[in-house]
Amino acid sequence: MTTIAFIGLGIMGSPMAQHLARAGHDVVGFDATPEKAKPLIDAGGRAADSGPDAVRGAEVVALMLPDSPDVTDVLTGEDGVLAHAAPGTLVIDFSTIRPDVAAGLAAEAAAAGLRMIDAPVSGGQAGAENAALSIMVGGVDADVAAARPLLEVVGKTVVHVGPSGAGQTVKAANQLIVAGNIALLSEALVFLEAHGADLPAAVEVLGGGLAGSAVLNQKASKILGDDFAPGFRIDLHHKDMGIVTSAAREAGVATPVGSLVAQLVAATRAAGDGGLDHSALYRTIARLSGRGSDTQTHGRP
Amino acid sequence: MTTIAFIGLGIMGSPMAQHLARAGHDVVGFDATPEKAKPLIDAGGRAADSGPDAVRGAEVVALMLPDSPDVTDVLTGEDGVLAHAAPGTLVIDFSTIRPDVAAGLAAEAAAAGLRMIDAPVSGGQAGAENAALSIMVGGVDADVAAARPLLEVVGKTVVHVGPSGAGQTVKAANQLIVAGNIALLSEALVFLEAHGADLPAAVEVLGGGLAGSAVLNQKASKILGDDFAPGFRIDLHHKDMGIVTSAAREAGVATPVGSLVAQLVAATRAAGDGGLDHSALYRTIARLSGRGSDTQTHGRP
Amino acid sequence: MTTIAFIGLGIMGSPMAQHLARAGHDVVGFDATPEKAKPLIDAGGRAADSGPDAVRGAEVVALMLPDSPDVTDVLTGEDGVLAHAAPGTLVIDFSTIRPDVAAGLAAEAAAAGLRMIDAPVSGGQAGAENAALSIMVGGVDADVAAARPLLEVVGKTVVHVGPSGAGQTVKAANQLIVAGNIALLSEALVFLEAHGADLPAAVEVLGGGLAGSAVLNQKASKILGDDFAPGFRIDLHHKDMGIVTSAAREAGVATPVGSLVAQLVAATRAAGDGGLDHSALYRTIARLSGRGSDTQTHGRP
Amino acid sequence: MTTIAFIGLGIMGSPMAQHLARAGHDVVGFDATPEKAKPLIDAGGRAADSGPDAVRGAEVVALMLPDSPDVTDVLTGEDGVLAHAAPGTLVIDFSTIRPDVAAGLAAEAAAAGLRMIDAPVSGGQAGAENAALSIMVGGVDADVAAARPLLEVVGKTVVHVGPSGAGQTVKAANQLIVAGNIALLSEALVFLEAHGADLPAAVEVLGGGLAGSAVLNQKASKILGDDFAPGFRIDLHHKDMGIVTSAAREAGVATPVGSLVAQLVAATRAAGDGGLDHSALYRTIARLSGRGSDTQTHGRP
Repeated sequence: MTTIAFIGLGIMGSPMAQHLARAGHDVVGFDATPEKAKPLIDAGGRAADSGPDAVRGAEVVALMLPDSPDVTDVLTGEDGVLAHAAPGTLVIDFSTIRPDVAAGLAAEAAAAGLRMIDAPVSGGQAGAENAALSIMVGGVDADVAAARPLLEVVGKTVVHVGPSGAGQTVKAANQLIVAGNIALLSEALVFLEAHGADLPAAVEVLGGGLAGSAVLNQKASKILGDDFAPGFRIDLHHKDMGIVTSAAREAGVATPVGSLVAQLVAATRAAGDGGLDHSALYRTIARLSGRGSDTQTHGRP
Repeated sequence: MTTIAFIGLGIMGSPMAQHLARAGHDVVGFDATPEKAKPLIDAGGRAADSGPDAVRGAEVVALMLPDSPDVTDVLTGEDGVLAHAAPGTLVIDFSTIRPDVAAGLAAEAAAAGLRMIDAPVSGGQAGAENAALSIMVGGVDADVAAARPLLEVVGKTVVHVGPSGAGQTVKAANQLIVAGNIALLSEALVFLEAHGADLPAAVEVLGGGLAGSAVLNQKASKILGDDFAPGFRIDLHHKDMGIVTSAAREAGVATPVGSLVAQLVAATRAAGDGGLDHSALYRTIARLSGRGSDTQTHGRP
Repeated sequence: MTTIAFIGLGIMGSPMAQHLARAGHDVVGFDATPEKAKPLIDAGGRAADSGPDAVRGAEVVALMLPDSPDVTDVLTGEDGVLAHAAPGTLVIDFSTIRPDVAAGLAAEAAAAGLRMIDAPVSGGQAGAENAALSIMVGGVDADVAAARPLLEVVGKTVVHVGPSGAGQTVKAANQLIVAGNIALLSEALVFLEAHGADLPAAVEVLGGGLAGSAVLNQKASKILGDDFAPGFRIDLHHKDMGIVTSAAREAGVATPVGSLVAQLVAATRAAGDGGLDHSALYRTIARLSGRGSDTQTHGRP
Repeated sequence: MTTIAFIGLGIMGSPMAQHLARAGHDVVGFDATPEKAKPLIDAGGRAADSGPDAVRGAEVVALMLPDSPDVTDVLTGEDGVLAHAAPGTLVIDFSTIRPDVAAGLAAEAAAAGLRMIDAPVSGGQAGAENAALSIMVGGVDADVAAARPLLEVVGKTVVHVGPSGAGQTVKAANQLIVAGNIALLSEALVFLEAHGADLPAAVEVLGGGLAGSAVLNQKASKILGDDFAPGFRIDLHHKDMGIVTSAAREAGVATPVGSLVAQLVAATRAAGDGGLDHSALYRTIARLSGRGSDTQTHGRP
């Protein structure tokens, strides 16, 4: 049994913390919105009144926060982890942030006597709830080895991909592919709808061949059902595409398709759909073909 | 047992014809390059000396040809199927051609007393060899029902998606998604390589999450191994992207991402890579980042 | 004085025919909508009751029609020019059509004993009204030389760019650049408006440097004034982008930017703006940034 | 006569400083590469041994530097302008930098008792040499009025577009349009060359119509002559496209075409052409169509 402070109990963090608690660990959760700790308590965990309160006594500090500034603040702020965690504490950052920020924070953590790995995840809300996440881990071998038993509680595929920051780099590539796959699926659906195809039949057969993907499996039927409840919000995917774009620029590589997809994600946000699931990228693609979401029936009565 | 004329014994057609022969059918193959019939003979089939020779006596005529003009020619030419097949013969066109041409040919076949369905496939060479193709079928219910036992010999997912031409429309959508997925995977790999990531580890973890796809499963390791032997050639995917582009235009829909991907496929062909597998789209993406195929080592010694 | 049959008296054709009449030529106009001949009559021309009526007795037949099928029909139909024009008649096609169709029709005209050049124009409604068009001429030297005095009545820049069809090829390139320039101007205006810039001042200074263009001079103030009355309609520019796309494909070249712009033109049409001026591409760009035309005030009260 | 410290005597700064000297001002130049002051001295100016040396005694400090960090460093460094300039000195920053950095530096300058305007320019090397630049000015009215006589020495179009930073915002829009115009011109030329058109004739007629632009006038013949000597380097335009991309993201607007063009500029740099003129974007477009610069003859023997 490990004592784990889990900071950030949103759509992703909450089920992850619950899985850790159900696996027998002593999980002390904290979220800026206190009522979000309720499901964790139901699962056998505890709630802390503040960040420092959660961190005190923890052997491991897990973070699942929205963006680079949030992680930086929670780690290095006055009430932050670096100031309150015991020497040797292992920090597992599940958040998706900039690779360069991740590497910098790991160095700061080391200077403060802590150990830190970046462990961003893929698989979405379903993956978090089913403990079936894919986890891309960056950090020192020994720290990754120490974290692995906990990572395997929440993830199905746990891979050590390189030094600090490498997990975030792979996650950036993941987000590039996922947003692109949603865009392509959306264009295919709009195309098929315009041609009067039987959409559920088309989705079934597309899924069986080389066009098959996790995005198609998880998102197509929701799109056809006009169900864009998050899930993973456009706002967050927009943030992630910014990470991809700037990391590509820094590395001197061109990502023409990813860059166009980033623009479509930005347009989805600009249209006021930032709070919807990232599959709402479909709505932008549909609008570009004159198929507004209001009038849209997906060819069904 | 059904007597089947199988015209077009290339990378896809040959293993499909063999599966039908091994399933106990009397398969008479014909290809413009006669030696391509050899594997079919080894599998228990027969070889015809000409198209009319193959068609004579056949209950079913199967076609697997490169492009719309080929199918039009083989069906409606002087030595064509419409002129030589017995009334009531069922024509199964596995080729990927223009939806409007498919619908037109089905009408011509009906006028000539034949029955015709479009049944383009997805799954690539591996799908053909493992009889695991995804088949998108357009045509009249009765004809699709009659063909289904044969389709299920070569395919794992067989779905009737609409009237004549609908199979081709869905196949066009399939090709849009597949080419796009190859482009996205390529951009991700170039991005990761430039960041010095452990590429095989990255591919493993990407495949486990929402970025997972059939393209990633089948193509990533080949790309990393500089193995671009076809498989499905860029030249053919370029032809297919032309079908997508013009069918989208006819339907009045915008496919911005698919359209950019079509340009990258065109660029791959213009670079002289038209004879390589469609995963050679990677080479264009790599060149755009100054990573020419000649000097490229994928970060491995 | 030359007797000229002028077929097609729309936004472009009408002022061109008037200029020819005012220059002293005997211009006999015909349009499917008879009242369109009124301004020509006011300018000293005549109106014909039918195509054959206009063509009979003409030394030159000028065409200004919307698309390839229109020109093909007017030339080769039962009541067409080829059937009714006197041998040796010079046909000047000002329409913008497919280069391959233009070359084919020139050959048909030659077979019928006529001479034909393609002479598509650029400069828009203003260019037509001010006799300041840019004319890109394809055809045989002698025919171009014969036509030149008439071309110079309506155009300021008249250039012989190659054999039959070459004028249309250059016009396709022209349309690629023009649509692209409108898209870029639109993105710049949306960008500047979002940043709260003084838009008229910005347009003035942009026009004085390397960003200056005919599109900026002619379209920026209209866009800022929400004036999208045609001018040259989106529907026609959409048709032209189809010509560019297929001609690029035939030539084996990639036009990634032009291809994306073609998608945005298609989206503008899909949004119901096909009847507006091509500068209405701005409306699509603005919508992509959440700046709908209904609520938009361009930062002005 | 005004005493002007001019810091940064490169391709642009050198002719600008010379024009100011020839106009009768006392211009003291400084560049990290001392021999770059030679032409200024020949024009009647003086050379300083260091930044502080130049700034001391100056009424106006003009800057023409490559990027945001350079300007920040020259202004706020230990040897910087803010530390050494007399109270009330007017700083004119001709450099192209980030709008937010420009606004921040103007605030710092004000806090240090100086006055600062941003005055980025367009028109390229030719514009600088011919004193025909377009200057987009951001700052307080009184400061812009004080600077105007000097700005009009080097510029033909001088427009006050808003408060501090607004000049940079407009310049960002300028760079978006210019890079896009180069890309469009390049695609048009590759398209025309592939069709065997007479390129100089095509350029002439394109320039006379709605496709006409400053880019076409200044760059087309150089491109056709394989002359890619800078001029304005790809490396700098790549930097500028980064400014556009991030400023668009901050403003919440989508710039799909600009974004694709930014990728093509990045690809040009990745191909090793970063030191060439920005018209070398053509080389990337040509390569995408299989027309490498080595074998390319532009259809001429």
